[in-house]
Amino acid sequence: MAEKFNDPDIFAPGASILITGAYLNGRETDLVIDEAGTIAEITSGGTAKKGDSEFILDADGAILIPAFTNTHTHAAMTLLRGYADDMHLQEWLGEKIWPLEAHLTADDVYWGTKLACVEMIRSGTVAFNDMYFFMDAAARAVDETGMKAVLAHGFIDFSDPEKREAEIAATEGLIKTIKSMNNPRIAPAVGPHAPYTVSREALTWCAECAESEDILLHIHLSETEGEVDDCLEQNGMRPAQYLDSCGCLSERTVAAHCCWLDEEECRLMGERGVSVAHNPASNMKLAVGRAMPYQDLMDAGANVTLATDGCSSNNNLDMLEEVKFAALLQKFFWKSDTVLPADEALTMMTSSGARALGLGTGTIEVGAPADLVLLSRNTAANIPCYNPVSNIVYALSGAAVETTICNGRVLMYDREVPGEQDIYQRAAETAASLVRRKEESVE
Amino acid sequence: MAEKFNDPDIFAPGASILITGAYLNGRETDLVIDEAGTIAEITSGGTAKKGDSEFILDADGAILIPAFTNTHTHAAMTLLRGYADDMHLQEWLGEKIWPLEAHLTADDVYWGTKLACVEMIRSGTVAFNDMYFFMDAAARAVDETGMKAVLAHGFIDFSDPEKREAEIAATEGLIKTIKSMNNPRIAPAVGPHAPYTVSREALTWCAECAESEDILLHIHLSETEGEVDDCLEQNGMRPAQYLDSCGCLSERTVAAHCCWLDEEECRLMGERGVSVAHNPASNMKLAVGRAMPYQDLMDAGANVTLATDGCSSNNNLDMLEEVKFAALLQKFFWKSDTVLPADEALTMMTSSGARALGLGTGTIEVGAPADLVLLSRNTAANIPCYNPVSNIVYALSGAAVETTICNGRVLMYDREVPGEQDIYQRAAETAASLVRRKEESVE
Repeated sequence: MAEKFNDPDIFAPGASILITGAYLNGRETDLVIDEAGTIAEITSGGTAKKGDSEFILDADGAILIPAFTNTHTHAAMTLLRGYADDMHLQEWLGEKIWPLEAHLTADDVYWGTKLACVEMIRSGTVAFNDMYFFMDAAARAVDETGMKAVLAHGFIDFSDPEKREAEIAATEGLIKTIKSMNNPRIAPAVGPHAPYTVSREALTWCAECAESEDILLHIHLSETEGEVDDCLEQNGMRPAQYLDSCGCLSERTVAAHCCWLDEEECRLMGERGVSVAHNPASNMKLAVGRAMPYQDLMDAGANVTLATDGCSSNNNLDMLEEVKFAALLQKFFWKSDTVLPADEALTMMTSSGARALGLGTGTIEVGAPADLVLLSRNTAANIPCYNPVSNIVYALSGAAVETTICNGRVLMYDREVPGEQDIYQRAAETAASLVRRKEESVE
Repeated sequence: MAEKFNDPDIFAPGASILITGAYLNGRETDLVIDEAGTIAEITSGGTAKKGDSEFILDADGAILIPAFTNTHTHAAMTLLRGYADDMHLQEWLGEKIWPLEAHLTADDVYWGTKLACVEMIRSGTVAFNDMYFFMDAAARAVDETGMKAVLAHGFIDFSDPEKREAEIAATEGLIKTIKSMNNPRIAPAVGPHAPYTVSREALTWCAECAESEDILLHIHLSETEGEVDDCLEQNGMRPAQYLDSCGCLSERTVAAHCCWLDEEECRLMGERGVSVAHNPASNMKLAVGRAMPYQDLMDAGANVTLATDGCSSNNNLDMLEEVKFAALLQKFFWKSDTVLPADEALTMMTSSGARALGLGTGTIEVGAPADLVLLSRNTAANIPCYNPVSNIVYALSGAAVETTICNGRVLMYDREVPGEQDIYQRAAETAASLVRRKEESVE
């Protein structure tokens, strides 16, 4: 165990750390993180010296891998976890989710996002791509928890010019707020909700804004077959082609779902260098009827990543659960026992995810930001350990994560996240208050 | 926390226990377990007195539910976890799994089963239905861990009369051994592997043996489409009809997989009162191409239960992960956002599973064996808790299980399973030795 075990300073930003006895790519490894949060040295054979490191963190044989990036979620929807399930989509949205969301406040989003951050840290995620409302409050929550995030205001105008102006103002306001925070861990994005909820004019504005501000564009794309049919009818082309005609497909685009893309659309995604966020659990729960065409997208050169979606359609944020859903859903739907093998699945949630968000590398190498996870080998589902990558993808859940490090800062150590109990309590109270406000307004 | 916190005696069989402050069906509940391991009293409102109970176990608001039953596994295959994945089925079996299994010893099966038991206890499972080799050794492992199990020798004769005699002898030997243990927690079963690996003569013998010995019949059925085609070609009928013609379908039958049953076969399963074990993760990983027809089986009156299959095709034994796979796979494959709702999914893994194995009730009521699980509410994925059943099915993993009680005996308390570290070490050594023996034999 660490020399300064239980020293709360290990959680402080800017601490330099020597990790000893970690298991990396099949060998015992030591790793030095400098005060800037960068990986400064990687050695094997137990030769590392404490040197200038303030802390020694004895990994005790735990598996060291890059931390995870969740490329599509609505973090504050933790507050809606389990509020309604097992309903037809339109009833679920119209009678349950939207009426509750109508009562959301910035304070709700703050506590919902804090809860999401703790849940993600506990399961090894250090960065996420978020789209929701009251995103100033979400930014504050992310800032405090030490995670990385790309935050977008969910832009919906339903072709109403007045709504459009309000959404443009909200988007511009968020970009300004986040840029003024000057926190390298947090970036704004434009968040046009989807081709069917945002007008062509607004989509075009979003594409131009993303380019001029040099930020990401985060959008839902082809989640259901109905969207494709409607898009063909209204625009005479399929959704990806339509988005492309609005300038919305580029290397700065993260497109969530993409279940119903055809081969030509996959080629277009590859040509434009789009990042795709696969949300297998959500797609299964909502019975969308088709799995994202993983192999076609990979063959086309798209950047395929992994995501949980929000908690009302999943209902958790555990990327180690999600990666198993991805690897199994691809095999099942595409009738192939070899598609999306374990190593590619791990890449989706590490380096590909990091590449999509541009907030790290998702790799373990000297000079990279120290975004790291230590996974217990002392847990039943990780025994035996012939192939750590197989166990990570197929056997482990987020509960195997012992330590989570983001930009060199320890966010969880030995399963402890500072302040988590307070966050659980406040988030539970916030959820109860939200439902109470909604019920009182109905009476 | 418990009055005698850390008292190792709480793990002893025959301890009488008062559980206080548990959350059961929406209210704070106290529950008394007597020395016979039976639920003696259930009260609400904090009125319970310690009375004659040796121990007080303060549940501290944890959710109390029936413990889980895993109705189809090959427990000792924990030793093969992650040994080979992402291969075509026949190569995977022929080049990896079978050559390794050829070196299995009784000692290997003992330690593999011990590891499986710890993994199941840690994730809330108290009973399982096992089919493998060296089942005397498996019985010893189950006896020691305090779990319940139905154990079958995997019977395969490939229509070879000599093999058949040997398998009959092995089956009769196991039945005798287990009956002589006189342990009410452990029952033998006959285990004809599948209609395509066992001759009609042997299937008929198995059906008669199950009836005369009054034990279960555990079999694989219609996992792949190829099996159905072959059965039609060879026997002129579909697999369920063929099994029925051998006398193999009755209330004592547990049929695993059943992915490719047609409507008429589902009706037959219902008429015969068969229990069906759904293995969604395994079916997805092995790309079987169709999901078990849950609704047709339920409408027909079959007893539909939940199972993990063995660790080489899953790759863990976590029923709380499996239940999410079940609820989501059914929705996805059958294109319905309402099929297999959370309450039915929980029933599959509790009362329906217990009914299949006949080793408990899977319910919480006075007079029932105390097969109980306490689930933490102090964990991110269980906050908020509008609907505990939704959180159990869609949000939690086995890591939320704090305490597991089987027949009134505490098998895990506050995440501690006595002796687990030793079992991890011995199982890891056993797996390493197994692979070494296989590799040496190849050289």
